[in-house]
Amino acid sequence: MEKKIPYKIYLEEHEMPRQWYNVRADMKKKPAPLLNPETFKPITEDELSKVFCRELAKQELDDTTAYFDIPTEIRDFYKMYRPSPLVRAYCLEEKLGTPAHIYYKFEGNNTSGSHKLNSAIAQAYYAKMQGLKGVTTETGAGQWGTALSMACSYLDLDCQVYMVKCSYEQKPFRREVMRTYGAKVTPSPSMTTEVGRKINEEFPGTTGSLGCAISEAVEAAGSQEGYRYVLGSVLSQVMLHQSIIGLEAKAALDKYGVKADMIIGCAGGGSNLGGLISPFAGEMLRGEADYELIAVEPSSCPSLTRGTYAYDYCDTGKVCPLAKMYTLGSGYIPSASHAGGLRYHGMSSVVSELYDQGLLTARSVTQTEVFEAAQTFARVEGILPAPESSHAIKVAMDEAMKCKETGETKTIVFGLTGTGYFDMYAYQKYNDGVMENFIPTDEELAVALSKLPKVE
Amino acid sequence: MEKKIPYKIYLEEHEMPRQWYNVRADMKKKPAPLLNPETFKPITEDELSKVFCRELAKQELDDTTAYFDIPTEIRDFYKMYRPSPLVRAYCLEEKLGTPAHIYYKFEGNNTSGSHKLNSAIAQAYYAKMQGLKGVTTETGAGQWGTALSMACSYLDLDCQVYMVKCSYEQKPFRREVMRTYGAKVTPSPSMTTEVGRKINEEFPGTTGSLGCAISEAVEAAGSQEGYRYVLGSVLSQVMLHQSIIGLEAKAALDKYGVKADMIIGCAGGGSNLGGLISPFAGEMLRGEADYELIAVEPSSCPSLTRGTYAYDYCDTGKVCPLAKMYTLGSGYIPSASHAGGLRYHGMSSVVSELYDQGLLTARSVTQTEVFEAAQTFARVEGILPAPESSHAIKVAMDEAMKCKETGETKTIVFGLTGTGYFDMYAYQKYNDGVMENFIPTDEELAVALSKLPKVE
Repeated sequence: MEKKIPYKIYLEEHEMPRQWYNVRADMKKKPAPLLNPETFKPITEDELSKVFCRELAKQELDDTTAYFDIPTEIRDFYKMYRPSPLVRAYCLEEKLGTPAHIYYKFEGNNTSGSHKLNSAIAQAYYAKMQGLKGVTTETGAGQWGTALSMACSYLDLDCQVYMVKCSYEQKPFRREVMRTYGAKVTPSPSMTTEVGRKINEEFPGTTGSLGCAISEAVEAAGSQEGYRYVLGSVLSQVMLHQSIIGLEAKAALDKYGVKADMIIGCAGGGSNLGGLISPFAGEMLRGEADYELIAVEPSSCPSLTRGTYAYDYCDTGKVCPLAKMYTLGSGYIPSASHAGGLRYHGMSSVVSELYDQGLLTARSVTQTEVFEAAQTFARVEGILPAPESSHAIKVAMDEAMKCKETGETKTIVFGLTGTGYFDMYAYQKYNDGVMENFIPTDEELAVALSKLPKVE
Repeated sequence: MEKKIPYKIYLEEHEMPRQWYNVRADMKKKPAPLLNPETFKPITEDELSKVFCRELAKQELDDTTAYFDIPTEIRDFYKMYRPSPLVRAYCLEEKLGTPAHIYYKFEGNNTSGSHKLNSAIAQAYYAKMQGLKGVTTETGAGQWGTALSMACSYLDLDCQVYMVKCSYEQKPFRREVMRTYGAKVTPSPSMTTEVGRKINEEFPGTTGSLGCAISEAVEAAGSQEGYRYVLGSVLSQVMLHQSIIGLEAKAALDKYGVKADMIIGCAGGGSNLGGLISPFAGEMLRGEADYELIAVEPSSCPSLTRGTYAYDYCDTGKVCPLAKMYTLGSGYIPSASHAGGLRYHGMSSVVSELYDQGLLTARSVTQTEVFEAAQTFARVEGILPAPESSHAIKVAMDEAMKCKETGETKTIVFGLTGTGYFDMYAYQKYNDGVMENFIPTDEELAVALSKLPKVE
């Protein structure tokens, strides 16, 4: 007999995964290696350890170990907000009148407000274990900076965040959350780094960019004894840590004997999507099960749907290793969009390779249709979603409506990565009917793509 | 053998209480009745039903029925965010180095961000059942207005919120959350009501007050067919609905065989405190157990610790019924404080009577010490608390530190009513070291208290 599915499936504490899952281990064709930005040769652990701390460099390069033990200290931290609930969206199903069963894995139930905390605590922990004094990073929308501030505060580690100047000024609340957690937040470009001073001189009055903030954070880490740089997305180590999302989601479904048909996640750099789909993609790779995996990206920044699969720089400043990925070109500047967390020119190399192998499909959606879905969801499900997460909501609703037409009872699972409390300017624009959509032309995309690095 | 206590105790869905508990039923000496503001005689159900909907008027006046069934529709809504977790504050205990066991009942895990939703959905439901078109209310800090907007949106009920003008302008994000949920938000005083126009004429450029907003909301309800006024605190019906907080907390403790020594809640109008302590006070009243119950209020608005127990108006406009309560006088204007939800001149009549009978003690704390506690809590427990909730955190930490001195292993439970995402201006002031404390002088308090209504 089928067990009645509760509104929220909470795993018990002891059911929380004890290991992260590295999907690369099950890939016959591995993602292409990271390249040293100076030599264009595969980067070594030693080279990478100058930027990242040693243990993370190891995780980054390891594509054969399937499972990594989650250290007890990280598990203890996870216990403050995990296992996160897998919610059956009964109210949304009723609102849509669909026979589909909709579930979402909710990662917004912690102060950082998003899934970013899963990797932030891991990266901060390994930095602490290495005896480092602190870490540096950049933040745009602010979710990653917030998460890292929390994690560092917990471990008593110094945290220096370079926040894109326009966000620093337009999102004062994000800044204050980070300060409340003891982080030092510097508007970028700043006068505290060489690259920052240079940019300020060259472009007086500039409000900054993510690319510039990355360059400043990397420089700041390199110029201080006992510091390393950390990053909240794109990297394989991040996807490894975020696999806890998918592992818990799968465990919760298994507990009630539910088989998912479709897994949907929003995709910027790929940290949430990669983490969510990892165990499901693993089953597909091992030939154990089949799922429809869907990445959803904003039409303003369509790296999977309209980008090129090639080696590219991960940052605008070209100081980080190169990765083979679906990219729009590291010089591509996405039009202003409220889903700041999805405004990245490239995509995780693991997600890119899975996409290239056909395990994953991708769709792009416009901003206004995303906010329309967000509002519908908020009103019936009682959670105010982040604009990023709402990309997944939109496609989940589309799929549920298709089921209504065909009468199919598909089981749809999507990732609700975070809450929208700090995105109310965007909601205001939508409420006021003045939100615009941005879809780059082929010509616009061609410009940045023409400047990809020439890698043999 | 003692069961290992997890970080978060989640009750199963089927363990969620099916009834609200009305502590008045167990009180030998009942709270004094509400009085008709025109006749000063105990108000009747019919009179009260002109302001509130019928079922809520009944609940308001019923001081003998101990348990009220929670309607299935409300239970279904509760299931979207309840049972809420009872969290064992292991990290805070470690940080303080205390032998005390600290637990908090966390009510911020829903989009409204606070416990207010527990009563909002109940009040909206009974309005819907009565066939009403909509409800009106006022909001200051915005937690109640947000909660009511969500509840009304869910039930497809019109929601009109009169928001104190200075909050409307200073808290645009709160306003946008309400609009996202479809509420009509009007800055008060407005030109849409008689009382609003009168106040605007009398005090050009005024930024409004809670008292004025209440008067506008009551007038708006009375002047539209099929509308009633609703209120988020102070009332006995609200305390009834909020009893779910205490019932769940007690069920969670019982599940692990834990006996609380001390229950601590912040107190503005008494909705959270009353709900949290209800079942514990009930046991005390029936002679079954003993607890130390502590109300925490801001030193800027010390109704229990420095007020008078007397009949007073619940609103500044004097249109609502009178209640016997601990009050600072309905004309008392608390100094600006960031804990907007605690800036109320009076106190729930049930909480007041329990306090008068000695079942409850009270303490007042200053703003800066509250934010200091909030920051410590946020850094180790990973939840950014609302300023209101942080009043309880402060006293819980004080008590835990006393245990450290005496070596006692007391079990401390406090109510964490909500999150501080919309209170970052206050955190900013604290972070910048420019937050001030407000403690009224005896002379200042005497002014408003001298104007209490003369009731026989």
